[in-house]
Amino acid sequence: MEEITFKHTIPVQLRFNDADSLGHINNSVYFSFYDLGKTEYFKAVRGGVIAPKDIDIVVAHAEVDFVAPVFLTDEITVQTAVCEIRNKSFELVQRIVCANTQAVKCVCKTIMVGFDFKNNESKLISDDWRQSISAFEGRSF
Amino acid sequence: MEEITFKHTIPVQLRFNDADSLGHINNSVYFSFYDLGKTEYFKAVRGGVIAPKDIDIVVAHAEVDFVAPVFLTDEITVQTAVCEIRNKSFELVQRIVCANTQAVKCVCKTIMVGFDFKNNESKLISDDWRQSISAFEGRSF
Amino acid sequence: MEEITFKHTIPVQLRFNDADSLGHINNSVYFSFYDLGKTEYFKAVRGGVIAPKDIDIVVAHAEVDFVAPVFLTDEITVQTAVCEIRNKSFELVQRIVCANTQAVKCVCKTIMVGFDFKNNESKLISDDWRQSISAFEGRSF
Amino acid sequence: MEEITFKHTIPVQLRFNDADSLGHINNSVYFSFYDLGKTEYFKAVRGGVIAPKDIDIVVAHAEVDFVAPVFLTDEITVQTAVCEIRNKSFELVQRIVCANTQAVKCVCKTIMVGFDFKNNESKLISDDWRQSISAFEGRSF
Repeated sequence: MEEITFKHTIPVQLRFNDADSLGHINNSVYFSFYDLGKTEYFKAVRGGVIAPKDIDIVVAHAEVDFVAPVFLTDEITVQTAVCEIRNKSFELVQRIVCANTQAVKCVCKTIMVGFDFKNNESKLISDDWRQSISAFEGRSF
Repeated sequence: MEEITFKHTIPVQLRFNDADSLGHINNSVYFSFYDLGKTEYFKAVRGGVIAPKDIDIVVAHAEVDFVAPVFLTDEITVQTAVCEIRNKSFELVQRIVCANTQAVKCVCKTIMVGFDFKNNESKLISDDWRQSISAFEGRSF
Repeated sequence: MEEITFKHTIPVQLRFNDADSLGHINNSVYFSFYDLGKTEYFKAVRGGVIAPKDIDIVVAHAEVDFVAPVFLTDEITVQTAVCEIRNKSFELVQRIVCANTQAVKCVCKTIMVGFDFKNNESKLISDDWRQSISAFEGRSF
Repeated sequence: MEEITFKHTIPVQLRFNDADSLGHINNSVYFSFYDLGKTEYFKAVRGGVIAPKDIDIVVAHAEVDFVAPVFLTDEITVQTAVCEIRNKSFELVQRIVCANTQAVKCVCKTIMVGFDFKNNESKLISDDWRQSISAFEGRSF
């Protein structure tokens, strides 16, 4: 994986029932953390909440490496960056990281595709996305 | 509590992450079991799914007795009955019960109130509800 | 309800999948918020995390009033106070409150009973609990 | 992807709060369905529940294709098969499938690695796993 500089990090508030009977934060909960990261990232990138009617991207694919378990006593953060924009999709890299040790617990790559919910078909990634992500990441996509 | 005869029982499919780090099915998950019971009860009573636009009741109050813990290896069911109908509300009793031993794990009384979502105000319990519940329970409410 | 002064308030970080298909934060999720409040309250009262082996209380009963729906865009907090201590139990009052408007969304009263997990039987509320709660609440229980 | 014949399928009981505010079963919930499938698959393969102290595999990697949304009114199943066994890992393919139309909603490939929880290090996939999976799948791994 290319070296990513994460410009977006948020703390995650763990809940008692996030842990399963092994005492680990359950893998399935990680995805709600990644969702949290994405939502806040998109807000930061676009300068505000995107109204449901204006949502034009959808998660199509995710690849996750579970590196080390997270425990209820850990303080964790989610880091989010876009690493690539193609015509009809872009790719996010996200990490769950221990706030104190910076140990990486989990890495997730997600492909989001442009989607026209009215006509139920794929669409190009809009210039709004391309420009606002480029500006946020300080890269020319 | 008056003696209730439960005419509606459904099995609950437990999920690994329903259990918390104490190995108990987490209390907060019980409420999704009770929701499951209510949904299926209302379907049975009304003879089909109620379309979202026709929903005219809302949960206003719940009282829960946690009798004994539930474990992942337990097979459990949710029992549901309406025990009282008033002008603007009705009351459900639900229980989480071990399918094998019939041991009661948790009891929940819920008050649902008639609600007009369009005008955002309380309303009378409809005759549809009163008659279909009376028929299902074999009691005259 | 007697007038409670809440000395313990924490913000809750909402997650996208806390909302159900009605767009409301689902009732069952409220209980994980109340758990969050209790955990942090007990930490504040006892001056640190209680080791699992030292846990000597258990939730026996809860009563919840659902006052108004919570939406994903709301900023909410959980307030927690102990309002009564008896020989073998104590009572918590908790509220979910909008951080901006102070509107009360939900109120929950919980009875926690002293429990000896080794011998699987009820026990007296320890002096540790009584004194530390009294000190935190500024009341003599 | 090679053509897989799935010999293990279980129905999934959907819960009201599995759906998010878009009305879709939330992606993060899919992983608890896949966990459910894995647990039941392993039980079927090994002829009973594996005691927690005997667990010697752990999820290391997952790749998910989100093909189409699942709705609360859908009846879905999870299909599970092992498609490859290597020295220190094996690979599962799982699908979320509509019970009525057989439409594939989501596909997940998971790599599970042999893990010695006592010594906190990777280990070989045991002969028990290799033989029982081969027998179940009717293939020689």
